[in-house]
Amino acid sequence: MVRIVLIGTGNVATHLFDAFSKSAALDVVQVYGRSTANLHHFSDKVATTTNIAQLVKADMYIIAVTDDAIAEVAGQIPFDDHMIVHTSGSVEMEVLLSKNPKKKKVGVFYPLQTFTKGIAVDFSDIPICLEANSKEGLEQLQKLAKTISKSTYTINSEQRKSLHLAAVFVCNFVNHLYHIGHDLAHQHQLPFDILKPLIKETARKIEDGIPKDVQTGPAKRNDTGTIEKHLNQLDNKTYRELYQLLTKSIQQNTKNHE
Amino acid sequence: MVRIVLIGTGNVATHLFDAFSKSAALDVVQVYGRSTANLHHFSDKVATTTNIAQLVKADMYIIAVTDDAIAEVAGQIPFDDHMIVHTSGSVEMEVLLSKNPKKKKVGVFYPLQTFTKGIAVDFSDIPICLEANSKEGLEQLQKLAKTISKSTYTINSEQRKSLHLAAVFVCNFVNHLYHIGHDLAHQHQLPFDILKPLIKETARKIEDGIPKDVQTGPAKRNDTGTIEKHLNQLDNKTYRELYQLLTKSIQQNTKNHE
Repeated sequence: MVRIVLIGTGNVATHLFDAFSKSAALDVVQVYGRSTANLHHFSDKVATTTNIAQLVKADMYIIAVTDDAIAEVAGQIPFDDHMIVHTSGSVEMEVLLSKNPKKKKVGVFYPLQTFTKGIAVDFSDIPICLEANSKEGLEQLQKLAKTISKSTYTINSEQRKSLHLAAVFVCNFVNHLYHIGHDLAHQHQLPFDILKPLIKETARKIEDGIPKDVQTGPAKRNDTGTIEKHLNQLDNKTYRELYQLLTKSIQQNTKNHE
Repeated sequence: MVRIVLIGTGNVATHLFDAFSKSAALDVVQVYGRSTANLHHFSDKVATTTNIAQLVKADMYIIAVTDDAIAEVAGQIPFDDHMIVHTSGSVEMEVLLSKNPKKKKVGVFYPLQTFTKGIAVDFSDIPICLEANSKEGLEQLQKLAKTISKSTYTINSEQRKSLHLAAVFVCNFVNHLYHIGHDLAHQHQLPFDILKPLIKETARKIEDGIPKDVQTGPAKRNDTGTIEKHLNQLDNKTYRELYQLLTKSIQQNTKNHE
């Protein structure tokens, strides 16, 4: 039985807690949060505390707090010989040692997914990206990751930072393009539902093919007539600039023109 | 039985042919293409011609050619009293009358989906957007659309143009962001597969919620530290400009900051 202390109460902490709770091999023994209000989701299921000095002993301390707070929180954990990991895509593993170099075993446990409050996720499909400063620590993390997911990767901090950046493009920025579609449809009394099958198919297409090979549209065809019409239709200056820049990027970065 | 002549041999024509062929209520009696090579997919299944003067009589002529060729082709159809429609998102219905004002019944039959050569699609979920210059013509189109799809919409040319523009954002531009993700992963020896569950979930999230409400990421949080780190990681100048502009657009156009 692996004893885990979870530090943090946000989306990642909540979803990890729910996933860990389903495994008989894991025991979340305590959750730390800055306020009792934040601990609401956990308080009837597990011991909680708002005082970091009162953390209990465990095999692993998982820090799922905002990036800026990771170093500080890691330094305050009152034990030095147990595994401490963070769950962030963009913070280097070494940050865990910065406020207290006596900590021995550190690592990263980064689930690559977008978590929304109140929406359950199936962890079994979520890639878990792992890093550790010792072979033993890495094995410990692999064992943990495999209890909740069938997809685990060992990657270094440099790779993880690139992955996080890539995730911003394929998740956060993609969602913003969905918003623009929603906005344009709404302006012309069209339901957003009409765009959903297209959104679904666009995501499905890259399951088989690589994105560059399935690129379509006026930019790819260099259909200047349609591009000009579209630009004239866009009242929102930022949307117009985005249309121009995305068109330019498609033409620069997907070489094999139709 | 509705007799249909299909004009064009590209992706839309091919996918429509396959969908129409499955319906007992429809009979594709002829397919026109500019060359016999283009007619390859059809020639063992239906009568074909490369001579537009030899089109046979039918209830409906469906023009699925490039936008610029629609007016020309419509003018060459040697019958004036049968329904003529095009399948384009960005061309006005009236273009069908421009080269031959004697044509009486015109309309638009626009399936809102991304079609890829060789990849079968299920038309039953594809929204078909309809427009006609007569009540009778619209009814004819609705009947046709309903034989292949459970989702039909009557929209005017102005709305259709906005929809086509919205589709460029949520399909073509989204696919390019997938390409950037692929590119960044590849540069750091990471398989693109690692990003696929995230891409899938990002598309799934907006089935229930509206995109603005599920927006996450450094831009939405105004996490300037992460934004700056990401910009420094991007060697490609256009990708960097895109990151900046998409960040600005998220901050301008999704007001309720976290």
